[in-house]
Amino acid sequence: MDSNKTVNPDLKNERQKCTFNPLELTYLVYEGRDRNKQRKEIENFFFSDPDLQDKVPLDFLSHKEKYEETIRKACVIHKKLLEYRSIAGHIDSETEKLLQSVIAAVLKDGNPFGLNTVMFVPALLGQGTPEQQSKWLKRAIKYEIIGTELGHGTFIRGLETTAHYDPNTQEFILNSPTLSSYKWWMPSMGHTANYAVVMAQLYTQGVRRGIHLFIVQIRDEETHEPMPGIKVGEIGTKVGMHAINNGYLGFENVRIPRNRMLMKNAQLPDGSYVKAPSDKLTYGAMMFVRVIMLQGAAAQLAQASTIAIRYSVVRRQSEMKPGEPEPQILDYRTQQYKLFPNLATSLAIKQSASFVWKMYTDNFVIKFDSSGNSIFYERAKAVCTSTAAQGVETCRLSCGGHGYMTCSNFSCIYGVATASCTYEGENTVLLLQTARYLMKAWQQAVSGVNLTPTVAYLKEALSERKSSQQWENSIPHIVKAFQRVSAGKVRMGLKSLQKRINGGFAPEVAWNSTSIELAECAEAHARTFLVETFIKRIAEINCSVALKTVLVQLSELFAIYTLLRNKGDFLAFSNMTPQDISGLQVWMENLLEALRPNAVGIVDGFDFHDRVLSSALGAYDGRVYERLFEEASKSPLNKETVNQSFHKYLKPFLKSSL
Amino acid sequence: MDSNKTVNPDLKNERQKCTFNPLELTYLVYEGRDRNKQRKEIENFFFSDPDLQDKVPLDFLSHKEKYEETIRKACVIHKKLLEYRSIAGHIDSETEKLLQSVIAAVLKDGNPFGLNTVMFVPALLGQGTPEQQSKWLKRAIKYEIIGTELGHGTFIRGLETTAHYDPNTQEFILNSPTLSSYKWWMPSMGHTANYAVVMAQLYTQGVRRGIHLFIVQIRDEETHEPMPGIKVGEIGTKVGMHAINNGYLGFENVRIPRNRMLMKNAQLPDGSYVKAPSDKLTYGAMMFVRVIMLQGAAAQLAQASTIAIRYSVVRRQSEMKPGEPEPQILDYRTQQYKLFPNLATSLAIKQSASFVWKMYTDNFVIKFDSSGNSIFYERAKAVCTSTAAQGVETCRLSCGGHGYMTCSNFSCIYGVATASCTYEGENTVLLLQTARYLMKAWQQAVSGVNLTPTVAYLKEALSERKSSQQWENSIPHIVKAFQRVSAGKVRMGLKSLQKRINGGFAPEVAWNSTSIELAECAEAHARTFLVETFIKRIAEINCSVALKTVLVQLSELFAIYTLLRNKGDFLAFSNMTPQDISGLQVWMENLLEALRPNAVGIVDGFDFHDRVLSSALGAYDGRVYERLFEEASKSPLNKETVNQSFHKYLKPFLKSSL
Repeated sequence: MDSNKTVNPDLKNERQKCTFNPLELTYLVYEGRDRNKQRKEIENFFFSDPDLQDKVPLDFLSHKEKYEETIRKACVIHKKLLEYRSIAGHIDSETEKLLQSVIAAVLKDGNPFGLNTVMFVPALLGQGTPEQQSKWLKRAIKYEIIGTELGHGTFIRGLETTAHYDPNTQEFILNSPTLSSYKWWMPSMGHTANYAVVMAQLYTQGVRRGIHLFIVQIRDEETHEPMPGIKVGEIGTKVGMHAINNGYLGFENVRIPRNRMLMKNAQLPDGSYVKAPSDKLTYGAMMFVRVIMLQGAAAQLAQASTIAIRYSVVRRQSEMKPGEPEPQILDYRTQQYKLFPNLATSLAIKQSASFVWKMYTDNFVIKFDSSGNSIFYERAKAVCTSTAAQGVETCRLSCGGHGYMTCSNFSCIYGVATASCTYEGENTVLLLQTARYLMKAWQQAVSGVNLTPTVAYLKEALSERKSSQQWENSIPHIVKAFQRVSAGKVRMGLKSLQKRINGGFAPEVAWNSTSIELAECAEAHARTFLVETFIKRIAEINCSVALKTVLVQLSELFAIYTLLRNKGDFLAFSNMTPQDISGLQVWMENLLEALRPNAVGIVDGFDFHDRVLSSALGAYDGRVYERLFEEASKSPLNKETVNQSFHKYLKPFLKSSL
Repeated sequence: MDSNKTVNPDLKNERQKCTFNPLELTYLVYEGRDRNKQRKEIENFFFSDPDLQDKVPLDFLSHKEKYEETIRKACVIHKKLLEYRSIAGHIDSETEKLLQSVIAAVLKDGNPFGLNTVMFVPALLGQGTPEQQSKWLKRAIKYEIIGTELGHGTFIRGLETTAHYDPNTQEFILNSPTLSSYKWWMPSMGHTANYAVVMAQLYTQGVRRGIHLFIVQIRDEETHEPMPGIKVGEIGTKVGMHAINNGYLGFENVRIPRNRMLMKNAQLPDGSYVKAPSDKLTYGAMMFVRVIMLQGAAAQLAQASTIAIRYSVVRRQSEMKPGEPEPQILDYRTQQYKLFPNLATSLAIKQSASFVWKMYTDNFVIKFDSSGNSIFYERAKAVCTSTAAQGVETCRLSCGGHGYMTCSNFSCIYGVATASCTYEGENTVLLLQTARYLMKAWQQAVSGVNLTPTVAYLKEALSERKSSQQWENSIPHIVKAFQRVSAGKVRMGLKSLQKRINGGFAPEVAWNSTSIELAECAEAHARTFLVETFIKRIAEINCSVALKTVLVQLSELFAIYTLLRNKGDFLAFSNMTPQDISGLQVWMENLLEALRPNAVGIVDGFDFHDRVLSSALGAYDGRVYERLFEEASKSPLNKETVNQSFHKYLKPFLKSSL
């Protein structure tokens, strides 16, 4: 880390106060001393390259300039990546994650080649025949072509793109029959990708055969001009992820050879059709991305917490006691309340993400529920991404005006975090899928079926009485209360649903009418899952007492904070009474106070490289005011004392009434 | 309004379903038929000017180009404004509000001359002597000079800028002793304003005399070059309000004549000093802005609701019943739950804003508490602005990916809305000021003093017992419950505070340690104020039964939604029991269902001009998909089929591994 020489004295002082060794936390976070060393080497390999520095912060550029600059950097970093791979030889999955996180830091507003890696290649792997793989896979992996993949929204059956097979020419003819059937949003599609895997409704011999995947060439490899019949362009500017170059795509009698249908699981010898053995495999490609998203949510919140906490010890404001100097704003209890729960939440999400990751890597395939969806993912994704996004905004707001500046980097982090609430499963849709799973699980429990561990508490709850026990301010008791709340809400949700069905509503109408309650069941279940997982994993960690103390404080804070934010549910469904709230409130306040001296130590332990944080407020050295001026000095407007608009517009206007 | 010919059929259908006449709501919102006519005329006068149209959406431009284009438009519109004023003659305060809202729509990312009107002129009016006013006021009002005003943060006493009086030359010498004493954030200061009212610590005869205001020339009127010793520039890019050109300002021995100190309330004949009769008047200038902010919060949320609701009847997605067509997404109960409470909240905030506005205009001065702050403002501002900002984000998220696009205009609205949480009183600071007021009010109630109407319920609560009455699903009962909750939280907050003081903590430390609870007291009080005011004012409105029914539904929805979101407090502090929740939940769901057919009618009644909404998703005609394509076609990237970065970077990279 940087020398302490130029470090802000307040930040230096915080580091001296810390009761544990942040490096121990770093090793824990990055899975050991060796992995951490490897991470530092990789960061150094990429971050030290002057070609990967922004000369002017992207925020000052036009939309077009941002795109061009990002393509430049993307080419440089992917070239380096190929170089790294060829030197390193075998790359394991942990190293792969490290590489991806470095790329994400350099291309912080989105990686224009990202979809090639996380969607195009997996689609070929999962759905291509050996012949198709040998033709396309190597080219994609070596970046001879840039592929993307076209999502389908939540209603696959309604997909309007058609692929008619013409047995005479042995070609498929792709069409977008309406404006609303144009693909919209495909990453990198605007001006970057030259190939895409496209979902379309297949028709052969005049019969609709269902959804299939096709490799479609979008642009000429030499000229990059769109292929005949391809209508392509970018969709425009967005809240964040400006460099992703999302595009639209329409087909007007686009003809592709027969061997471009991905046919690992389907055959089409002469227009006759053999269905794939399992439709579910079509979903395989997106699963890896989804698992990675949870880890992203944890990282985004941890980064925002780091920036806000470092800034809050440097920033001094107002007075607490008359006549005394302005306190560090982190000494305000309300500021601690904005930041420390988010710090704790970032770790809670990280633990759940690791759990889901383990389910993924252990089984290699995701466990699907009856509708073909990944239950572990859905359960965690909606609550993790929305909590992370809101947390990032809370961190930004806690930094006042300076948080509002883009050089704080909060807005960029938020732009990525809030996008996760929508893509790869819109959060409300996922909550309702989880709710459907929970309703079934409850009914199974009632009929005596044993449930998988993460919902086993539903069955236990059946035989419990709410008020059988006095409230206890202990973590095991609180975890139990989370389970009771979740079970209670599931029971109530099902009751409301059945009441409507018994009242004569069609099941679908009843479901829709009850869906507010049902979504809340899923949220309560996810919170229970997060609290349980966090508490359990922290307890299992093998580390020094000093560090363990802090980690336990964080896990307790997460549990109590989450409880108090939902105290209505606990009063309604657990044995907590209004008289128990004060005690929990004081416990939470004591945890905030206990964490205060170690706050900087904890975020130092996360050890985000300054380049990853990319923030004038959150750098390791805490030179906030100097960096704000440095960033301002990069503004092209500040390169001249007088802007041309004065002579063109302002002066004539000011003089016009004289 | 536009012809119905090209209107989206789903939207057309919604309009036929509406049970009331939206025009009646429009007249109500805009205070009568005549005012509404005037509004339309003003909108037409400005919006029809082709010079005020954006050729390219600002989002595609660079930061510098955005600035230049905004200065151009600001000059055009302010010239038109002077023209309008000279034709119209006397302009009353309602007309002034209409004019300001049209300017805000054209300069939707901030008005670079706004501070001249809302800060600089009022500062001169409030603090200038007759001589100073005759010299500066007319010039500022006619835009011969552009002034701004320098805020001071929440800690005025800590202000570091110094003004030393030199009796020899009869000048003040201004200095910024440190980097952190540089003014930062002043609107329009970067490259636009040429004058500023500056706060500084006055020193005469070696003695510190407290804070005073000075008119400082920042830039030469002919060349616009910074004056000697003035260090000025812009601070850089921000989350929103990109055109405001916030700047930094430092002084290095800047000499200004003696008559530039605003001296209405102070005298300085020869270096000897007579203090102003009241420091509080110094705050006067900012009060008008603060009151206007509440109305802004209501408008932002109403606009976001309009966009999201219109989009939600055009957008169809998934399936509710197998085999049926995709439903309009507004038919999903969860979507109604995201949007209708925000619609209701926008009206609730509007009613409270009108109340505060009336307090302001009736008394001409704001009522201050003992620390010189406006209690009515503080009470409402924190909760109104943060609720509005969160609501705008909820509306955006409810529109999925398309909400994420800047052409939806949500991000621009959010950028302005979220800024309000920080400026003119940071929300947490204001909540704690309100809490201090509430603690005093409670203590007064205990000692038998009568309280002002808005807190009179605290006294009533003293003599009540929580469980004296069964819960009733009626609005008067719910309003009462809000008061009980607020009183209960105030009582608990004070108890926690006193417990800490009795335990030996210094009062300031005890206050800080209890501040989470205290801020929550202020929030509960503000919610009570909002609910009470909304219910009361809707009841008073004189209108058709058809419209009244809908308005009552909205006020009930606001009350019940707010209650359920805070049900823990109601279980703890009111006579509500867990068994009462289901009934309230069903009541709320029934209100959502009842409002569904009128949702479009209500937002049509708000009658925002398409130019004000500035949204591809929310226009009156509902041509969402056509407009999305139109907006995409404006992207400079889409003007060429192949971007230069392909030849410069991408092609060499793709070919490099061959």
